[in-house]
Amino acid sequence: MVLSHTTHPGNIGAAARAMKTMGLRHLYLINPRHFPDAQATAMAAGADDVLQDAVVCGSIDEALQGVVFTVAMTARLRDISIAVQTPREAMPQVLQETQAGPVALLFGTEMSGLTNEEMGKAQLGVNIPADPAFSSLNIAAAVQVIAYELSVAAQSYAPVVPQMRPRHGAAQPTSAGVAASHLLPQTAGSASNVSKVRPATHERVEGLYAHLEKTLFEIGFFTTQNPARLMQRLRRLYSRTRLEDEEINILRGMLTVATEYNARLKKRYAEEHPDVQ
Amino acid sequence: MVLSHTTHPGNIGAAARAMKTMGLRHLYLINPRHFPDAQATAMAAGADDVLQDAVVCGSIDEALQGVVFTVAMTARLRDISIAVQTPREAMPQVLQETQAGPVALLFGTEMSGLTNEEMGKAQLGVNIPADPAFSSLNIAAAVQVIAYELSVAAQSYAPVVPQMRPRHGAAQPTSAGVAASHLLPQTAGSASNVSKVRPATHERVEGLYAHLEKTLFEIGFFTTQNPARLMQRLRRLYSRTRLEDEEINILRGMLTVATEYNARLKKRYAEEHPDVQ
Repeated sequence: MVLSHTTHPGNIGAAARAMKTMGLRHLYLINPRHFPDAQATAMAAGADDVLQDAVVCGSIDEALQGVVFTVAMTARLRDISIAVQTPREAMPQVLQETQAGPVALLFGTEMSGLTNEEMGKAQLGVNIPADPAFSSLNIAAAVQVIAYELSVAAQSYAPVVPQMRPRHGAAQPTSAGVAASHLLPQTAGSASNVSKVRPATHERVEGLYAHLEKTLFEIGFFTTQNPARLMQRLRRLYSRTRLEDEEINILRGMLTVATEYNARLKKRYAEEHPDVQ
Repeated sequence: MVLSHTTHPGNIGAAARAMKTMGLRHLYLINPRHFPDAQATAMAAGADDVLQDAVVCGSIDEALQGVVFTVAMTARLRDISIAVQTPREAMPQVLQETQAGPVALLFGTEMSGLTNEEMGKAQLGVNIPADPAFSSLNIAAAVQVIAYELSVAAQSYAPVVPQMRPRHGAAQPTSAGVAASHLLPQTAGSASNVSKVRPATHERVEGLYAHLEKTLFEIGFFTTQNPARLMQRLRRLYSRTRLEDEEINILRGMLTVATEYNARLKKRYAEEHPDVQ
């Protein structure tokens, strides 16, 4: 659970208690206004260990380091850049993603929720259905509902194991099979290869976005575009795809080449038009 | 929602907020320690109307007046006298019972939950599954989970309408059919009779228990039994059956006759044995 810029320390304590009742332990706090705090401890009511082990972070990227899947809680069904599901719809996927690495459930401030920038770091949005006339759940109450849904889903959860090919068997790969296995390297070959599908961590994905933005500036793409808006749309695209580690290498390789090509073009242009500055 | 003997007014406010986010409005408070209270209002955070309309009661029977189905929240899976379900299992029935009249969701104190006497007033127990090592949800958090489950269940809920007999048709009742309709007056005859199935209200059921206990005393049944324990077992039995209004009339009629019979026996015994006092 990651709580961003929480204002009232009592809410941090109540959230810790809510987590612990459902068997959750790992709390991350991004720039909490007051922490540690006596009110947090009072509201934790026995979940002191969760508070004590809480990791205070200076930025969202620090909090999401190593995370492979981030779920953003949103009270508003605004025009956000990612798919939004109900808690019940989302929890099976959340559990499945934990097979690949740490999953973050991200909560915004009491007053205004998550910023657009924070939402852009997530691959999935979750909205707790509420009365449209009064939809503001207390943040600790929202943590309780989410932790409860996760716990209930975990009771009946069986991880989906990727389909493995038999190492030996009558069905030898045809040439078409070889071609397919080239397209799907993660399922080809021996069973041990299955573990080679590695979803990219948060910081690797952010590294790609930074590289992408820099490249788009360099090649002059942003002269007719709103950079912030375009980056949001690109985040949306890549959030849907759930990038793998190897794919990020490929994409960044492409960006590097694109810049170099552009640099060569510029250089040649400068050589051919020495009069233009 | 009925909160019994709540200690901290902040919890009442937080519960009111939790209710309102899920579209619930009717809050009953049995002997709250502090209410109204500034802390309750602060924690309600906009659900002031729910607090203002809250009904403060002096006893559980006052709070449950007119109620046809009472659900008791329990944190402990103790040896209680009623069936216990998860919130998800229970909510379809809760919604169905609202077709017959008001349904109460009953929450105990922060420290010790509901008393055995309070549990005995309910027809169903609900336990929010929690980590056995730390199972104490905050009361407002529990209200949030229950209100949320009720709200989610209501989205997909379609009331079960009692089967109606055709008013006209080829299948005329035979003499056996007439006998059956005598046993099942609520489904016999015209469609308008369907609405005559009336589940007994809380106070009618309590009236039966009081009558039953008094009668058992009078007929001397309790001389070899623990009265409190036996009454708990009888409550368990009748809670399962969901008594109808008419059935209570029948049962109380039986009790009256039993007492009268007993009184006649005593009188005759006294007449025949004038020496025994």
